[in-house]
Parts: sequence; structure tokens; C-alpha cells
Amino acid sequence: MSSAKNKKTPTRATALPEEFARELEEMFNGRFSRSDSIRDLHSRDESYFPPALPWAVVFPESTDEVAALVRACNRHNVPMVPFGAGSSLEGHVLPVHGGISVDLTRMNRIRAIHAEDRDVVVEPGVTRLQLEKALAEHGLFFPVDPGADATLGGMVATRASGTTTVRYGTMRDNVVCLEAVLADGTVIRTGRRAKKSSAGYDLTRLFIGSEGTLGVITEITLRVHGIPEGISAAVCSFPDLRSAVESAVEVIQWGVPVARLELLDEVQIAAVNAHSKLDHEEVPTLFFEFHGSPSGVEEDARTASDIAKEHGGREFRWATAAGERNELWRARHEAYFAALALRPGARVMSTDVCVPISRLVECITETKAEVSKASFPVPLVGHVGDGNFHLLLVIDPSSPDELDEAHALNRALVERALRMGGTCTGEHGVGIGKQRWMELEHGPALDVMRAIKTALDPKGLMNPGKLLPPR
Amino acid sequence: MSSAKNKKTPTRATALPEEFARELEEMFNGRFSRSDSIRDLHSRDESYFPPALPWAVVFPESTDEVAALVRACNRHNVPMVPFGAGSSLEGHVLPVHGGISVDLTRMNRIRAIHAEDRDVVVEPGVTRLQLEKALAEHGLFFPVDPGADATLGGMVATRASGTTTVRYGTMRDNVVCLEAVLADGTVIRTGRRAKKSSAGYDLTRLFIGSEGTLGVITEITLRVHGIPEGISAAVCSFPDLRSAVESAVEVIQWGVPVARLELLDEVQIAAVNAHSKLDHEEVPTLFFEFHGSPSGVEEDARTASDIAKEHGGREFRWATAAGERNELWRARHEAYFAALALRPGARVMSTDVCVPISRLVECITETKAEVSKASFPVPLVGHVGDGNFHLLLVIDPSSPDELDEAHALNRALVERALRMGGTCTGEHGVGIGKQRWMELEHGPALDVMRAIKTALDPKGLMNPGKLLPPR
Repeated sequence: MSSAKNKKTPTRATALPEEFARELEEMFNGRFSRSDSIRDLHSRDESYFPPALPWAVVFPESTDEVAALVRACNRHNVPMVPFGAGSSLEGHVLPVHGGISVDLTRMNRIRAIHAEDRDVVVEPGVTRLQLEKALAEHGLFFPVDPGADATLGGMVATRASGTTTVRYGTMRDNVVCLEAVLADGTVIRTGRRAKKSSAGYDLTRLFIGSEGTLGVITEITLRVHGIPEGISAAVCSFPDLRSAVESAVEVIQWGVPVARLELLDEVQIAAVNAHSKLDHEEVPTLFFEFHGSPSGVEEDARTASDIAKEHGGREFRWATAAGERNELWRARHEAYFAALALRPGARVMSTDVCVPISRLVECITETKAEVSKASFPVPLVGHVGDGNFHLLLVIDPSSPDELDEAHALNRALVERALRMGGTCTGEHGVGIGKQRWMELEHGPALDVMRAIKTALDPKGLMNPGKLLPPR
Repeated sequence: MSSAKNKKTPTRATALPEEFARELEEMFNGRFSRSDSIRDLHSRDESYFPPALPWAVVFPESTDEVAALVRACNRHNVPMVPFGAGSSLEGHVLPVHGGISVDLTRMNRIRAIHAEDRDVVVEPGVTRLQLEKALAEHGLFFPVDPGADATLGGMVATRASGTTTVRYGTMRDNVVCLEAVLADGTVIRTGRRAKKSSAGYDLTRLFIGSEGTLGVITEITLRVHGIPEGISAAVCSFPDLRSAVESAVEVIQWGVPVARLELLDEVQIAAVNAHSKLDHEEVPTLFFEFHGSPSGVEEDARTASDIAKEHGGREFRWATAAGERNELWRARHEAYFAALALRPGARVMSTDVCVPISRLVECITETKAEVSKASFPVPLVGHVGDGNFHLLLVIDPSSPDELDEAHALNRALVERALRMGGTCTGEHGVGIGKQRWMELEHGPALDVMRAIKTALDPKGLMNPGKLLPPR
């Protein structure tokens, strides 16, 4: 991989050139801001990293405006950092090398709903709950559901997934094609609306998970699904963590087509109870959902329930009406905020790994043994049907000792997952926080990623300081 | 996309340097050949393109040997063309710029079957029927089934799909990760065995469909599936093509989770009857398969059958026993050879496109009206559940008139598909034959592909003359 080496990165600007600021002011009028409050809002996400202020914030409203902005930034060697809901968990949107925060939330139109093709075309600032509402009228839904009400652009950029990934896949599987603005301002389309294609390199998948480092995503065509006829959700309590995880693994290995299969440990359940005023028994708990025809759902649920019972699980508590189900999953989606509420003033260092399902019991039980000795609360919650789980390290970010302890736990978790054939992040992305393991996880393939980055962004202006570790 | 421009491609060798031949002879001993018969076997695939002889053929048996070979070729600026079953349809394996044909069929070991994780690790020369047999013992199957008994390496390289893609996806969806040898001999792994990951650029998907132009694939980890409890197949005849396609589209839009949904027009049915000694009524026909629990399969089949009847379809003729089903699908898989047998001495120009399902009726009926006037047989066969269909242009390749006519029909088909938001190839790949439409399909995104190619293969030695059109 020699091609990327020995190339000198052109000098990035270190502050906003005044003439450029005037240029942007003229281009964007009231949608260009250098105010402290606006910059502050764009200096942080949901991670524990110290804020980093952008030099200015721009709010484009169209692909053409994004392209014009990118061309201008490119001319002035000014870094660009796309910004959506600010709900990233590894510092993705923090302008650590300064530059312009490109706030895409005004590009929030749903451009087309092709119900007959089961796809929709959205702008990157559309949020998942906004989309959910628009699709429901057509009897459709979009399955990928990270905890936050993230923007679809952010979800593409981090290759997000969620509770339904076990059945419907991640963003990788649910994006048809993209429009993106490259580092030099060129607007490309990465594919067509056909369901499959063998016509060249898969640029769609290259941009999914690229975290803003290859270009700015300006339009997304998503695959959507018909709302199933039968939906049924259930909660099942277990005497201990191992039996809960063993049940989950067995349900998957048995081939039950669960739509959701979530684990909350007793710490997380207690947090959820307190935060969402619920009364779940405070023990390790699996949350299930089944989709299909009414008879299929019943069949699947019976199999899962039988497996759970064999492992000491209690009776399934059902939620079949839509209202009850939403209530149940709201609790799950608020896990992060429930964890945050455990300690006033705390921040959550949220980390996630994913391992082959055959190693999940071992990985979770070893991890749990370790974090149960931590000096702060560490809820464990997971998309266990995928072999993916999270630790929410609820720390006082002003305490160096707690930060050190949290970093050590995170390191141990990631290295355990890598040893077991897993990945350093199943769904949060690399951002700032996971860069240190990219070499260990990818070896020489990391140089391929660098070569691609250099080929598409030779000046290193697209979200610099993210995804790829410094050499 | 300026970075890739103005770069001079280093001069490729135009013949096999004698010292290099001796080097290879020493390295590979009896597994290096310059014999005419061996070279001839590696000069062609199933396409209509004139053969192109490699300078020599090498049969590596391990990743290390491939890496050593690639390093040596790189040193001598000698092109490399990976070769598997030779069943590609767009000239992918033809060494049009000379060089070494890298025959990977001796790398045909199944390295691991992880039944508990539903994945398998195979070498690139393993064929799909070989894999099918090995998996069956474990109650597992691999769904992607192009017509030929292709190698898995070739299937990755062309992003192959098949009759079950409507339910289980293409190679894109069924490859977990890869090992590949890059142009400079570096061996990389593109990912881990975890079910999902957000750790960096999706190199796995970049290599799937790259047609040997970015590196040589030396190991493949595939997702496999449990053989469903209930499987049932059926055939349904229709009074005309439109009603058959309309039924297929409606089955998909209704959300019936069919496992297979294939169309054979009356010309293809006649060919299959003659070739496989069958007695299907010679009218447009849909072939269905349903997978699931026994009750689910029944439910799905009833819905599909009701839809077909509304469109004038006959009674479903069922094949539920495994033997009958295999017989039924064998006929479908032999469609290509059945077409070839229509005219002794003929070649098949096999082309495929894929359009959004909402445009499929229009696309197929327009196409059929055109090809029914052709001066040679043109069976139409399709994975219609995906919006994907094929024309098999059964031509005398020595007739310039027939070649011209076939090219014109192919061009009209592709341009129709592109106009309808589709792609110039749903599953055959670009190879030589579809290059001329890459610009029209991808616009400026084609330059991104070129930039990636230049970054990973700066000397242009990896399967030159394929996928990317000349500038």
C-alpha cells in the first residue's frame, strides 16, 4: 500500500480566514453563525470527550448549497464536520481540528415515498422518529433504531443499528443508495434504486460508516418494510445473567426469527425503573419482539418461551397492544438517559463491542465480573441476538481516577472482544474513542483505509481526526 | 476527483519476461504451465467474447503462494487475472492484456464450519455445489445460487446472486469477511466474524463485486442459514407474459416472503422442456418456493396462489418432496445450457438488468415486444422478485449481422433499464461487456471508482481491462 505514503498533506487552515468568513456570510446570510452559543451547541455530542468549538456553523438547505460550501472550504483549506442530532457516542461531530460545523438539520425533507418499491428518499437531517411518523400512514416502517432520535444522515455515517437489527439488519442492509458531496465539491450518486446491482465498486457501502471522512451525505434512499400483520412483545426475567444470555444465544442458534432480542442487566433494569417509573423485577431481563403472521408469531414466541424456561426464565409477560409495546420499548430506548440519571452531573462513557454469538456468554460473563467491581455504576445492555452489547460507564468526568478506571474497563472489554474474534465497535463507530484499536483490529487493512481516504480527500479536510488513527 | 488524474500508469509488460518465467517455474514447479491446451482453457468463459490467451497459468495452493506470485508479478509489471470455474458471463477471466491466469481451483478446502455461529470459512476455489454438500450434513445451506457451479471466489468477485436472493440477499449480504492479496502482495483481512461492526470503512463490501481489479481473494467467510423446516415449491402457468409479471410484482408488493420467484417465458420453457426432457406447458411460467414453518409456508403459498389466480394463472402444481423440488430447480438452473442447445454451434450473449419492481412490468413487456422480432431465439428468464431479468441471445458468433443485432438489443435493454432507474447489470457484473454503460449509470461516481483503483493498484496489474472503461 505504498501509494498513500510519502504524500504531504497540504497545510490545513488553523483559524477561519476573515475573507472566507465574509464569503460565507454572503453565501448563507442568516444561516452562517459565529455566535458563542451556536458554536457551543456544535462543540459536543453524547460522548464524554471534552467539547471542541467549530470556528463557525453553517446551515445549508440544499445539495447545491452543501456543494458550494465544500468547494469554498476546499479552496481555503478549512476542515468540515457534518452535524446532525449531536447524538453520536464517540465524539464524531466534535471539530477537533477546528473548521466549519455543517449543520444539516434544515435538510429535513422526505423527498419521496415509493410505497410500491418499498423505498423512501430522505434528506440527511430527517430524524428516525420523523420518518417513522411519515411511513406509518403508508403501513410501512424503517427498522433501524439507535436509542436517540438521530438523523438518518448520522445513522448512515456511523453505520448505525439497533434493536431490530437481529431481523432487519443494520444501515448497511437498509440503505439503497446515497447522494454525497465529495471533498472537492463534486456531487455523486452511489447507486440506483434497483434492488441489486453488480455494476462496479460498492460506493454506497463505502460511504456507510465513513463518519463524514469521505464526503457529506446529502440524500439517502432507504429500504423500508411493511408493518407486519402480527407483532407481539414479551419480557422475561432470569435468575442470573448467564442464564439470560444462554437463552438468547440458544434462541438465535435455534433459528427463531425474532424481530428484537434485548438484554438489560439488573443495574440497567433498576435505572430504567427509576427513570421511566416502571416496576420490572430488578434482575437480568430479556425483551423479545416477534413479527410475522399471527400464527407465525405465536409459533416463534412459544419456541422462545420454551427455551427461556429451560434456562430458569420466568413466564413471559406479554405486550401485544401497540400502546403497551411502545411503552415497553420506550423504556429500552431510554436506557442511556436512565443510566445518566443514576448520578446527577455524571457523563456516560458508552462503549460497545460485538462478538460471534458462540463467544457471547463467555464475553458477557467475564465483562460483568469485572465491571461489578467498578467504583461507579456500569449498566450492561445489549442487542444480544447480534452478539452486540454496551457498557454505560456512568462517571464523573471531572475525576481523573474515574476516567482512568473507565478507560481501563473499556480497554479490557475491547481487547477481550478482539481476542474472541469480535470487533471494537458493533454500532457506535470509531469517532475519536475507538481509534486506538483500529490497528489491532485491522492490521494491514488499515493502510487500505488510509489509501482510500487519501485518494478521496487528499487535503484531509473532511472531518479530520476521526476514524483513522494518526500515524 | 482530481487526485487520480494526471498520473502516469507505469508500463505494463507486453510479454512474459523469460527470467520471470524461470522464476515462476522454480516457485511453482509443476503448477506453472505455458502449454497451449492449459492456456486455451484459461482464455475464455461462458461469454461471447473472443478468447484471449494468458501468457502462462499458475495454480497456487495457499495464500502465501498467491502473495508470493503477486509480489513477483508486481516486480515484473505482469498483469494477473484470477480464474475459478470459468463460468463468468461478461468476459471477466479473459486476459485481454495478457499476463498470468491465477487459477485458484486448487484452493478448494472448506477451512471451518462454525455451525453455532452460522458461518463457514472457505478457500476461493470451493464451488457452490461442493459447499452445499458439506453444509447439508450440518442442516445448513448457503443460499446464493448462480446458474453455474461457480467458485465462491468468482461469486464474491462478481457480487453474484440467484434464485433465492429475493429472500436471502446477494453475495453482498452473505459474505461476513474476506482475506485478499493486494497488488503489492500485502495480505489483508477485511473484517471479523462478528455479525456487525462499525469499525471503519467497509472493505468487505468494496472487494465484493470488484472483479479481481483490486486484489486476489484468498479466503471467504460466508453467512449460512439453517435449512427451513418447511419447504414447498410450485409452478404456475399464465396465459401471457404480462399477467405472469404482474402476479410476481403483486406477490412482492403484498410482502409475501417468497424464497424464490422465477419467471421463464414461453421460449425458455420450450428450451428447458427439450433440454431437460420435461413437459411444462409452453407458456410464460412462474416458479415459486416458500420457506418457513410448515404452517407459515402454507399461508404464504395460499396468498401467492390467490394473487396468481386473480391474474389468470392456472392451479399451482406442487413439488414438496425434496427430489421433486430438486428436479424442478435443476430445470431452472440449466436454463443457460437449454438455451445454448436451441442452436447447435451457437454462443449465448447473456445479458441482465435490474429495475425497481414498480417498473418491471413495463420493462419486461417493452423488451419482449422488441426481442420477439429478433432473427434468432431470445429466451427471457428472470429473478422477477428482485426486478432482475436476463435475455439469452442465442447467436451465431461468426455472423457479424447477428452480433450487430444482438448488440443493438442489449443496448436497447440496458438503456431502457437505466431510464427506469435501474442498473446495467443486476448480477452478471461489468467485465468487458458492460463497461460502455458505466459512465451513463454512474456519472461522476465513476471517477471515485477510478481513484480507488489507482490508490490500490497504481500499476494497473490486477485484471486490467475489466470493470472500468478506458478513459
